Amino acid sequence: MSAPANLPHGEQDDVSGEALITSSDPEHPANLIPDLCRNFYSLGWVTGTGGGTSIRDTSTGNIYIAPSGVQKERMKATDLFVLAYPAKKYLRKPQNLKPSQCTPLFLAAFDRGAGCCIHTHSQWAVLITLLVEKQFGPDACFEIEHLEQIKGIAKGRGKPGALSYWDRLRVPIIENTAHEEDLTESLEAAMEKFPDSYAVLVRRHGVYVWGDNVHKAKTMCESFDYIFQLAVEMHKLGLPWVRDDKSGLVEG
Amino acid sequence: MSAPANLPHGEQDDVSGEALITSSDPEHPANLIPDLCRNFYSLGWVTGTGGGTSIRDTSTGNIYIAPSGVQKERMKATDLFVLAYPAKKYLRKPQNLKPSQCTPLFLAAFDRGAGCCIHTHSQWAVLITLLVEKQFGPDACFEIEHLEQIKGIAKGRGKPGALSYWDRLRVPIIENTAHEEDLTESLEAAMEKFPDSYAVLVRRHGVYVWGDNVHKAKTMCESFDYIFQLAVEMHKLGLPWVRDDKSGLVEG
Amino acid sequence: MSAPANLPHGEQDDVSGEALITSSDPEHPANLIPDLCRNFYSLGWVTGTGGGTSIRDTSTGNIYIAPSGVQKERMKATDLFVLAYPAKKYLRKPQNLKPSQCTPLFLAAFDRGAGCCIHTHSQWAVLITLLVEKQFGPDACFEIEHLEQIKGIAKGRGKPGALSYWDRLRVPIIENTAHEEDLTESLEAAMEKFPDSYAVLVRRHGVYVWGDNVHKAKTMCESFDYIFQLAVEMHKLGLPWVRDDKSGLVEG
Amino acid sequence: MSAPANLPHGEQDDVSGEALITSSDPEHPANLIPDLCRNFYSLGWVTGTGGGTSIRDTSTGNIYIAPSGVQKERMKATDLFVLAYPAKKYLRKPQNLKPSQCTPLFLAAFDRGAGCCIHTHSQWAVLITLLVEKQFGPDACFEIEHLEQIKGIAKGRGKPGALSYWDRLRVPIIENTAHEEDLTESLEAAMEKFPDSYAVLVRRHGVYVWGDNVHKAKTMCESFDYIFQLAVEMHKLGLPWVRDDKSGLVEG
Repeated sequence: MSAPANLPHGEQDDVSGEALITSSDPEHPANLIPDLCRNFYSLGWVTGTGGGTSIRDTSTGNIYIAPSGVQKERMKATDLFVLAYPAKKYLRKPQNLKPSQCTPLFLAAFDRGAGCCIHTHSQWAVLITLLVEKQFGPDACFEIEHLEQIKGIAKGRGKPGALSYWDRLRVPIIENTAHEEDLTESLEAAMEKFPDSYAVLVRRHGVYVWGDNVHKAKTMCESFDYIFQLAVEMHKLGLPWVRDDKSGLVEG
Repeated sequence: MSAPANLPHGEQDDVSGEALITSSDPEHPANLIPDLCRNFYSLGWVTGTGGGTSIRDTSTGNIYIAPSGVQKERMKATDLFVLAYPAKKYLRKPQNLKPSQCTPLFLAAFDRGAGCCIHTHSQWAVLITLLVEKQFGPDACFEIEHLEQIKGIAKGRGKPGALSYWDRLRVPIIENTAHEEDLTESLEAAMEKFPDSYAVLVRRHGVYVWGDNVHKAKTMCESFDYIFQLAVEMHKLGLPWVRDDKSGLVEG
Repeated sequence: MSAPANLPHGEQDDVSGEALITSSDPEHPANLIPDLCRNFYSLGWVTGTGGGTSIRDTSTGNIYIAPSGVQKERMKATDLFVLAYPAKKYLRKPQNLKPSQCTPLFLAAFDRGAGCCIHTHSQWAVLITLLVEKQFGPDACFEIEHLEQIKGIAKGRGKPGALSYWDRLRVPIIENTAHEEDLTESLEAAMEKFPDSYAVLVRRHGVYVWGDNVHKAKTMCESFDYIFQLAVEMHKLGLPWVRDDKSGLVEG
Repeated sequence: MSAPANLPHGEQDDVSGEALITSSDPEHPANLIPDLCRNFYSLGWVTGTGGGTSIRDTSTGNIYIAPSGVQKERMKATDLFVLAYPAKKYLRKPQNLKPSQCTPLFLAAFDRGAGCCIHTHSQWAVLITLLVEKQFGPDACFEIEHLEQIKGIAKGRGKPGALSYWDRLRVPIIENTAHEEDLTESLEAAMEKFPDSYAVLVRRHGVYVWGDNVHKAKTMCESFDYIFQLAVEMHKLGLPWVRDDKSGLVEG
């Protein structure tokens, strides 16, 4: 379904480009972002308008971003911001809505080849950042190994395939800042230091997860969250995340 | 859709004002309250007909209140009470239903400028009131700091913007009473003592949360609940809610 | 909608009475039981075909009972058994389905004036029976006080109103047996010993909850479950269920 | 509804057999697998495309298997693989999708008379494998007794009826391998060693559950998961899974 030719203009002028968010394809970013956000809300990832989602349209390269401050489970396609990419110029800015403060962080992922970036406030992510700090200090990353779900995480940019069951998963953690956009520098530094990571945890805040496309980003975001939750429960039950002595392990 | 002109009268006499609850706008309080209550039920906030919700209609100023004792996930617009405001006279009283015992407490929030007030029996809220009492005594309020979700809470009545990541969130706690309406005095006292707070916890009972409008009240209610849940989990894991020594913190 | 006059007979002979389960009223037991069972499934009360539900039709007095061994979230009106009451003779027995083993236990509640009886396998109920046994021995009942949700429990048969915030809630616990129907005797004994109780816990099994009508039974079942869950969490956090010394309490 | 006679061929050639997945019956495997997968997703069993489901069609004997790497809650009938059985030759292979790596493990269950096999990554299953290893060593199986939900588990292949409340449930645990298909040998060994078991746990991975038909497999998968969750919670609360001294127990 294409946009009608006789769109009312005037007060819609600064929202130009209804065609950008009009598609009958449920997999189009304009339909998929509200759909995913409803799912993420029920998973507890975007409570209280927290978190965010962005998808790069595979046909046009444009980036679709959920706005700031909107209840994620009630979001509509008309709420979305659209950004030309790599020009990074807004093609669509809904009136009365503010762009997501995650925008520069999402762009950091897109600049490294991502096709989708998801930000959640999952409590499991927040608890992991606190448990790592308490046990291993503020400079430690989160490490865990020998969980089947680790195979849900891709090996790294440009590397085919996924992590193996025998691989140790490492997720960097950065410190939170007063303003979300001020995270950009340390997020990018973590991305450079951990070039194969598809996630960066933010202390007392949540996690950013991305992937080559929306399918991979969502799958990895679910896998990371599963692993964070399992790790918190393991900690409660006195079960270690890694084996201190790896000498006994046979490579698979 | 306006109400039909030839409404049957007689036994409907004391329910006057079907037009008050008849709207095709999903954002109208008559449609929104049942919709939100279904959501709140699935969040565990209004189990066993507990809790309540009230919205002030932005166009008329009338206050819509969910009734007492109705299963929240099965509520219908016809179940709603409507109160003229600030006159505080009933415009609509459904037959066979009782007004919410929360009514005077909701009015305490409306009298202080609220556009919506939500009352939940969330178990996280109840547990927080018990953990605070156990650790800090019956006079202590709940305090937590350095969580991103704190930014989901507004700064205070008449103050633009939201709390900062570096702010400490304080939520007063009042003691429960035998009858819900008897909470009014201590709720109002807590509102006066904590004029910037948008929530008051009730020991062994739940929480009242309000906001300038329904969007802000719902967003804050979710953010408070997220923070209460996270704080309970932090307590289980031996993670402190606040730093004893704040000298090392750099203001953001 | 009444049943069509020309119902096919023959193989339907022993299922007589399609009219008993044919109603366009969503509150009719034939529609309400499948609806409630979907809800109970999502609450984790009837996992793996566990648990059961029965409602006495207010107009006919007939009792509608969910069958044994059917996936509760996929139940249909045609799966229901219907029993004349107080004659206790089957008016409708679906082919290929077995009546619920809970039937004699449900009847024990109906014989004491109930209009609806619900049986859940809620894990919170099971954990409470184990925590009570561990702390207070096999003969103790579950006791808790000073929770607002206690006001969701009615005072007792023939007594108007609900428990007060200051009342202590007591729920008897009976030992499980190999066969569900063998619980009948001890369930009835508990009902006689605790004539005001609307619930009986079954050790390592679950809980039976009933009420004057379906609304009250469902509301109390939710309130009991909320209280069981909260009590388990309180136990984990070292918070006592009752005050040892009640002398300091002021009656509300 | 049968497939239209004039199906487009050409690029659909290697997907032959649209008729295999075209049915108006909601209980047909082609409709039931996507439906169940949505349910399993909401139960947290198939997060991040993990887990899998397979059903043997009772009329044709063909086996329907959910593909690898597809988001389970968004699966469509057209995504399904169909295998002739016992010939084990693909009748339908969707383009661009890979067969589930669980296929040889599912076949191990079908070769032993199963009508449906479900594989979940449930965190409760994973935690049980870790708690058993920690307490009883790597060779121990999971054992628990005296829970009503144990009656949700069938007695064993060819044995009528279900386990009794007084029976001890034993579930074998096998070690995880780098590649899912490499589990086949140890899964089959566990099936031979525990011929009456309808489930095999996989350390740090999840569980395989099967049954004579889809109804029984789903019911048992829910019952096992309920028992795993309850056992983890019991462990947190210091409640033992089995009584050391069974002398005091009276057989039911």
